[in-house]
Amino acid sequence: MGPQKTSYADLLIIGAGPAGLVAAYWASEYGLDARVIDDKPDRVTKGHADGITCRTMEMFDSFGIAGQVYEEAALDYQIRYWRLNAVGRLDRAQSINSQAAGICRFQQCLLSQGRIEELLEDRISRGKGRLRVERDVETLRLTLHQRDDPDASAETHPVQVNVRHGRSGGGCMGDGDDDDHVEETIRARYVIGADGAHSWTRRQLGLTMRGEQANHVWGVVDLVAVTDFPDIRQTCVVCSEHGNLHVVPRERGMVRLYVQLDDDGVNPSAAAELRSEATLETILATAGKALRPFLLECARLDWWSVYQVGQRIADRFSAGECVFLVGDAIHTHSPKVGQGMNVSMQDSYNLGWKLGGVLKGQLQSHVLETYETERRPVAESLIAVDQETVAFYAARGENVATRDLQCFRERHYAFLSGVAIQYEGSALVYAPSAIELATGIQLGRRMPSYRVINYADARPTELASKLASDRRWAVILFAGDLRQATQLKRLEEACAALLRSRLLRTRGSSKLVTITASPRDSLPLTGLPPLLYCRDGENDGHGQENRNYEVVFSDEPDVYGAFTDVYAKYGVDREKGCLVVCRPDQHVGFIGALEDVPGLDVFFTGIFRDS
Amino acid sequence: MGPQKTSYADLLIIGAGPAGLVAAYWASEYGLDARVIDDKPDRVTKGHADGITCRTMEMFDSFGIAGQVYEEAALDYQIRYWRLNAVGRLDRAQSINSQAAGICRFQQCLLSQGRIEELLEDRISRGKGRLRVERDVETLRLTLHQRDDPDASAETHPVQVNVRHGRSGGGCMGDGDDDDHVEETIRARYVIGADGAHSWTRRQLGLTMRGEQANHVWGVVDLVAVTDFPDIRQTCVVCSEHGNLHVVPRERGMVRLYVQLDDDGVNPSAAAELRSEATLETILATAGKALRPFLLECARLDWWSVYQVGQRIADRFSAGECVFLVGDAIHTHSPKVGQGMNVSMQDSYNLGWKLGGVLKGQLQSHVLETYETERRPVAESLIAVDQETVAFYAARGENVATRDLQCFRERHYAFLSGVAIQYEGSALVYAPSAIELATGIQLGRRMPSYRVINYADARPTELASKLASDRRWAVILFAGDLRQATQLKRLEEACAALLRSRLLRTRGSSKLVTITASPRDSLPLTGLPPLLYCRDGENDGHGQENRNYEVVFSDEPDVYGAFTDVYAKYGVDREKGCLVVCRPDQHVGFIGALEDVPGLDVFFTGIFRDS
Repeated sequence: MGPQKTSYADLLIIGAGPAGLVAAYWASEYGLDARVIDDKPDRVTKGHADGITCRTMEMFDSFGIAGQVYEEAALDYQIRYWRLNAVGRLDRAQSINSQAAGICRFQQCLLSQGRIEELLEDRISRGKGRLRVERDVETLRLTLHQRDDPDASAETHPVQVNVRHGRSGGGCMGDGDDDDHVEETIRARYVIGADGAHSWTRRQLGLTMRGEQANHVWGVVDLVAVTDFPDIRQTCVVCSEHGNLHVVPRERGMVRLYVQLDDDGVNPSAAAELRSEATLETILATAGKALRPFLLECARLDWWSVYQVGQRIADRFSAGECVFLVGDAIHTHSPKVGQGMNVSMQDSYNLGWKLGGVLKGQLQSHVLETYETERRPVAESLIAVDQETVAFYAARGENVATRDLQCFRERHYAFLSGVAIQYEGSALVYAPSAIELATGIQLGRRMPSYRVINYADARPTELASKLASDRRWAVILFAGDLRQATQLKRLEEACAALLRSRLLRTRGSSKLVTITASPRDSLPLTGLPPLLYCRDGENDGHGQENRNYEVVFSDEPDVYGAFTDVYAKYGVDREKGCLVVCRPDQHVGFIGALEDVPGLDVFFTGIFRDS
Repeated sequence: MGPQKTSYADLLIIGAGPAGLVAAYWASEYGLDARVIDDKPDRVTKGHADGITCRTMEMFDSFGIAGQVYEEAALDYQIRYWRLNAVGRLDRAQSINSQAAGICRFQQCLLSQGRIEELLEDRISRGKGRLRVERDVETLRLTLHQRDDPDASAETHPVQVNVRHGRSGGGCMGDGDDDDHVEETIRARYVIGADGAHSWTRRQLGLTMRGEQANHVWGVVDLVAVTDFPDIRQTCVVCSEHGNLHVVPRERGMVRLYVQLDDDGVNPSAAAELRSEATLETILATAGKALRPFLLECARLDWWSVYQVGQRIADRFSAGECVFLVGDAIHTHSPKVGQGMNVSMQDSYNLGWKLGGVLKGQLQSHVLETYETERRPVAESLIAVDQETVAFYAARGENVATRDLQCFRERHYAFLSGVAIQYEGSALVYAPSAIELATGIQLGRRMPSYRVINYADARPTELASKLASDRRWAVILFAGDLRQATQLKRLEEACAALLRSRLLRTRGSSKLVTITASPRDSLPLTGLPPLLYCRDGENDGHGQENRNYEVVFSDEPDVYGAFTDVYAKYGVDREKGCLVVCRPDQHVGFIGALEDVPGLDVFFTGIFRDS
């Protein structure tokens, strides 16, 4: 046994897959004393997940990596449904939009998990915390110390994780350490278990998965094909008498095939047998038969695997209020709906900023309870949609002609896009909110983005660009029509109230964004309350460097006449305006009138710690 | 005197400003044995030019740097015209779009020359040639050897440039050279003089500038202002009784002010006196008076300068068919029209690919003659527009009320945007072309870009993304409506002819792009001639890696129903189609019917060398 060492960290993230890395993104943004460990010596480069929903693209955009993802990904505009026609020949029955119109400025797309991890890691290493993943770190024991343990660190660092560093060396252990297998005791305030379907963390905590056992077996293969199938560059669902096949286009001319190997579900032991017997040849032969009369041969294999998947959810998402599980560690399902990586990353996107806020002393620790209350319903919906989807596709041959993929997809569009996820009322979603003031904004959902006009220079700007994941809460003032003296006065009074409010006492935690309903020429920027455009919140006499020209907008046509009418889109009264607050994860937490700064203060009082 | 050395290069670029760097971009793309030298020890970081036209943005996009420029630049949507109103108070008289609607997908913008140079240099260093600028290199003598000189290298390397490397060291001279001032003799096949208004290269060649002497004096200042002028973040023309002022928003909250110091033009010696006497205080005081009653104070100065500028053009743009001048070395004018950096870069953008093609043995050397025939009319137009503009703004006080900036701008919109530059018929612009086949495309102008639909995956794609500055000629096949058997046959015959043509004999010099008028579902990709989508041009049996899914498009609505109708926009018959050829600089060189591959061959025969 090598030398021992005890280290302390505020946050330990176990697992550097997509879910772990999104947690690491937040840790980096908050500048946490955090570590990310993974038991594998190298990053995954081939295979695994690949579907990216438009909500995930919004999240990537808020991290600043959407452009790169978009450039490399295969974009998914249309799903094609192939089935046997009246004379028993495989035929294109329906072309269905992959995504509902107008729900998002991004399009869902496909890119390999390994590349996504690489882009995330690169972004994190360039972030505030310059966090790096430590690989080849084997986890040995997780101990949850009671807060009143005699152990000196139990109060502050209740989680103990013993690990062993592999040959490739732990970054934290210093250079030139000759011993191959250094052991280390990591004491952490919080731990995130992002270690997948077979989660070591979950097993250490003794949590169990509930739901159907693993009764579906899928072959998955990434390859370069020789084929005359005309829709090889589109997402396809192929239902033939020889079985079901999903065709998924991928980057660099590859195609992914999902091939169902079980016949409409089998019992777990039969599934295990099916899995152990499955070979690449079985998968390709099944796929080839399903696609007849089209040719399908493998010109170059990239990766293949067999999945045996149950539809299950963990009984609890956390333990001891200090260990949290995310991603596949708490929900498993079939790959049919292309959601796994997305829901997993969104788990961490939800949890990470809450942990960051608590560790930075900004937020009260009870906000961590909302992690499970917000994410469990999403996991349950995921399982439900997955079950329906598996059932929909399972029936073979004769009766699929009666099925309408369009109708089926339309029922699930909203969930599958990710943009309709809505969190219930809680400390973080202010239930008494006056939601009738913004009928186009759903309390608890992510804030939709539209183009507004920069007040200072007329540049059309996506509102989302103001909601980057920079850990700040966004207070969006729909200022209304400032040509009316009474409305300008209301705005001034709202700003005066904001200056006295908790919002500004926790400065650095929030950002103000203003959208006027009146045109920019009707009142100069300097006619607005200085709070809205001055960096110091007060004085416009300090010159342009004290001004922020990027936070005040108007809702008016651009110089070429194109008018978004965002007040109508958000359902906000152009005369009266309102206040909308977005959490760091872009979900709407509060809606109120301009007079309702006291209500906003009540909301923040329930969340923020006194500073 | 330090040690001497003689080096050889195919191309020597003198001057690493924007024009020199665009030439270097091409040199890098063509993988030329090229060098770029500059006499200054460091890159310019402050001041100088800043206006970027939408055509320049297109060029940046074709280099892959448009996104970064756009992110950092101040965007210029609207010009505001301020003048004295009836009661003698400064008033906003007109708001004018900076750019005509619909001419380009980019918007003109403003970013400092130094930053643009940095982005270009970074791009070039990552390019094929990994070319780097050698700084602090003083030019001493330029000698043009006659091709029949007894000098051994006169035939191949007729230009000799003697230089002295400064303290910061020439990269080519190796490390660890202790001597401060190494002299070097550079023998080059070609030289580009991109060394500015006081061009050393031009003086060495004995070329002269013709036109008005320097009779206008301008103060220019970049600063952070304390001001209540409401349009400080927009481009403004301010005509008051106290003089003229241009307000130009800049990156990082700065503003640039152009202040005319001469009174409607003075004689050269008076101008020189005015220039030598001008101080920062003079400029700021003049600007302050012009902007009354608004406040204008300097919170932080970034840079200032005084220009004394004549409107002149060099009598010749080249010497000895091997030394070429670009940019300010051949045209000087006032900064009023924001064109200098743009026209200069476009000079090099025009010249660079021609030199690259000649040096690589692809193009006949006579194509170099088109550099001056194509760019002199542009320089002349530039001077004419500048003269008109100076005259328009020069009149002070009383009579400006009668002037209509909108009318004035509209007359010059096309030229000022850069997208309407049209080269006359020549070896590179095939005059007999059947231009009636594509009435929306101007022979000799840059190809406009519209959104087409990817044939394989339905992704909407800007055609311009297929016209990147990668040194290849683009042959765009408007394939027409392939549901008609006769039209498919015409396309197949065109492809057969192309396979026999010079185009494919110089493979690597060209790229094919196909746009069908029929919807993608009416004929699978594999129903098209393999030439159009197979990398080897012939065989589709080799699998997906031999297919290029990014070069065939259709003109049909996207999956959400938005229809660009590019055939109508390009004025091409949806049934018949046509052939359009773009040069490496995106200018249209040839338009013909699908049958006119022989005409295309004639065109190429006049340009390409036999290989």
